Amino acid sequence: MALYVQKFGGTSVGTPERIKKVAERVGRFRKEGHDVVVVVSAMSGETNRLIDLAKQIHEEPSPREMDMLVSTGEQVTIALLAMALEQQGVPATSYTGAQVGIVTDQAHTKARIKEIDTDAIRQDLNEGRVVVVAGFQGVDEEGNITTLGRGGSDTTGVALAASLKADECQIYTDVDGVYTTDPRICSQAKRLESITVEEMLELASMGSKVLQIRAVEFAGKYKVPLRVLSSFEDNEGPGTLIIADDEETPSMEEPLISGIAHHTNEAKLTVLGAPDIPGVAAKILSPIGDNNIEVDMIVQNVSPDGKSTDFSFTVARGDYKKAQEILEKVVQEMGSGKVVGDTAIAKVSLVGVGMRSHAGVASLMFKTLAENSINIRMVSTSEIKISVVLDEKFTELAVRSLHTAFGLDKESQDS
Amino acid sequence: MALYVQKFGGTSVGTPERIKKVAERVGRFRKEGHDVVVVVSAMSGETNRLIDLAKQIHEEPSPREMDMLVSTGEQVTIALLAMALEQQGVPATSYTGAQVGIVTDQAHTKARIKEIDTDAIRQDLNEGRVVVVAGFQGVDEEGNITTLGRGGSDTTGVALAASLKADECQIYTDVDGVYTTDPRICSQAKRLESITVEEMLELASMGSKVLQIRAVEFAGKYKVPLRVLSSFEDNEGPGTLIIADDEETPSMEEPLISGIAHHTNEAKLTVLGAPDIPGVAAKILSPIGDNNIEVDMIVQNVSPDGKSTDFSFTVARGDYKKAQEILEKVVQEMGSGKVVGDTAIAKVSLVGVGMRSHAGVASLMFKTLAENSINIRMVSTSEIKISVVLDEKFTELAVRSLHTAFGLDKESQDS
Repeated sequence: MALYVQKFGGTSVGTPERIKKVAERVGRFRKEGHDVVVVVSAMSGETNRLIDLAKQIHEEPSPREMDMLVSTGEQVTIALLAMALEQQGVPATSYTGAQVGIVTDQAHTKARIKEIDTDAIRQDLNEGRVVVVAGFQGVDEEGNITTLGRGGSDTTGVALAASLKADECQIYTDVDGVYTTDPRICSQAKRLESITVEEMLELASMGSKVLQIRAVEFAGKYKVPLRVLSSFEDNEGPGTLIIADDEETPSMEEPLISGIAHHTNEAKLTVLGAPDIPGVAAKILSPIGDNNIEVDMIVQNVSPDGKSTDFSFTVARGDYKKAQEILEKVVQEMGSGKVVGDTAIAKVSLVGVGMRSHAGVASLMFKTLAENSINIRMVSTSEIKISVVLDEKFTELAVRSLHTAFGLDKESQDS
Repeated sequence: MALYVQKFGGTSVGTPERIKKVAERVGRFRKEGHDVVVVVSAMSGETNRLIDLAKQIHEEPSPREMDMLVSTGEQVTIALLAMALEQQGVPATSYTGAQVGIVTDQAHTKARIKEIDTDAIRQDLNEGRVVVVAGFQGVDEEGNITTLGRGGSDTTGVALAASLKADECQIYTDVDGVYTTDPRICSQAKRLESITVEEMLELASMGSKVLQIRAVEFAGKYKVPLRVLSSFEDNEGPGTLIIADDEETPSMEEPLISGIAHHTNEAKLTVLGAPDIPGVAAKILSPIGDNNIEVDMIVQNVSPDGKSTDFSFTVARGDYKKAQEILEKVVQEMGSGKVVGDTAIAKVSLVGVGMRSHAGVASLMFKTLAENSINIRMVSTSEIKISVVLDEKFTELAVRSLHTAFGLDKESQDS
């Protein structure tokens, strides 16, 4: 018999009816003899309702009082889910973050978990009870209620699983797993049986919204087996298991790449002919950062003449205009260079721990794109990822042709 | 400079706008240099919304989970009020019942306060902060959230005032004080400057809904000066001060009676010709109690023939039919007696500690009613109260004529 930590998000518990469905699912695990700790978010819409109330009173409410306010959202859900479990004859007890001893630092609205006291949970589990814990919240050492920031319920789930040494942390979402690429643009996309934490982190940072990055990091750090699966009744499958990568025992079967991510919400800016002198990158990027604009990819080429260089980077599309204005000023101050940009771009990334030990991933990628007449505008690489920027109109074509070229398409019997 | 505990109910904090108004009022006291602890209820409608959610999931939710659920209502209000105070430049900190150390017994949904740890509050007050405390809720010794039952916010206010030895506990309501009688049926009704705890208890038990009985009892027990006043901006008056009665120093000016209450939600039942033997009252009333019907007035006359007696009592009108059916069975079992009843009755009560030391209150009451051709159907007395039951249609006439006869009408310059 196993110990599972199961996390259900706001949509899964959005109405009394859906809370009952969650209780049925949890109850089935319990009746199979497993121990279950459930972590839940606020009912969908509730957190926004509370924030809206606050905004009617204070433009910038104190973070402590915001945490006091929004933490009521999960508290409502845990009580309702415990009632729903009892209704089905499954003994259950609910706990707020403070009650269950999720101690955090004092960084209200974005607190980090320092320790968890699992005594109360263990006692309830020993008595055969399901334990229902409020996600997203904790308590600092002075007893103030804190929250982990939006999406923090995933982190609560993984942290509890780590503290309890659970056999698995199951994150129930509105998708049934992690896919090789976006099924909406590539019908050949396959659900992955498993993926490493590192790969998942790269996919998450590329816009794959399945899991919160911090939760995945946590799972990697504490070696918690993490499973993403669907919360919908009509889609009960095994989901995708996210496993802590262990470099000492690489699998022979490790695929070259695990997934393809794409991202079309960025814009590219280039300073052409910037002086190729030390400090020029900082001169260009500092004012961008000072204006709270986040920069994603950064590429600087060796200058052909040794005097000037072309410096490119990408920003969120909504920041494009502001970044452009800032760069125009920078160029004026430097006395040389020209600003050009493009908003109609897409970033396509290959992710896979397999590419560490395999040469040729980049060349197969570039060859495939060339065969499809897709021009590459920028390239950036990390140990387990290659990202290219291309014209937005080529996004689907690029994803689909790479999906086939890297052998990710479904087996024929599936299609 | 004084220390005030101020309690605002659900209507007073029903919207963000009204919460801002409360913050303005609290802020004015603070700016005059007073220390202020504010106790608030859930926003009006919120507790019912939460109970409705629970009922959609479980017909009889566990009391522990109900407390977990409904206690979020006040938690929302304390956060919003603290924000509203900060918005006005008044430093404020909010606390849940658990955080502020309101320790109760384990009687979920109707818990009683055992002790209050006021250290955190005192520290905040010393730092010049307004302390905002969630009413209605506490925590048991094992850390479970408890609630004091509906209206318990008044009790929280009085208990905090007692623990902090506050100069006054101010209960803000939708009326501007306690009146000699119901102003809706007697235009001569006067607001009382002050009233004793005992009188207030008698009035409260008579259906005067100004304050929760437990809160008044608490105020009496711990000698907390308690003031009822209006929460509405356009009605700022001194309200009514409820003072712990001190029998050793009676005021020379003590009025004969303080107020007249009336109650038209009862029904009268009589068993005529019951056998006048020991135990007959129990035989009649036990099955009534067994069916959870609360009995108010009970009157039994000496039997004229020494063999049979007439036994009368009143119940809530909603329980009349059920009580009648029960009595029919009782009469059948006893083998004698006849059940008669009346639902069109009213109870009118005179309340006043002054009547303790004054004879003649009853006779003036009966004389006044007789002069107005009002027949008395039942009489019951306590040390500071006389209640009579009469035909419902005479309610207003009885209240107005007694109001005049006992000298409670407004001074002529007021009218």
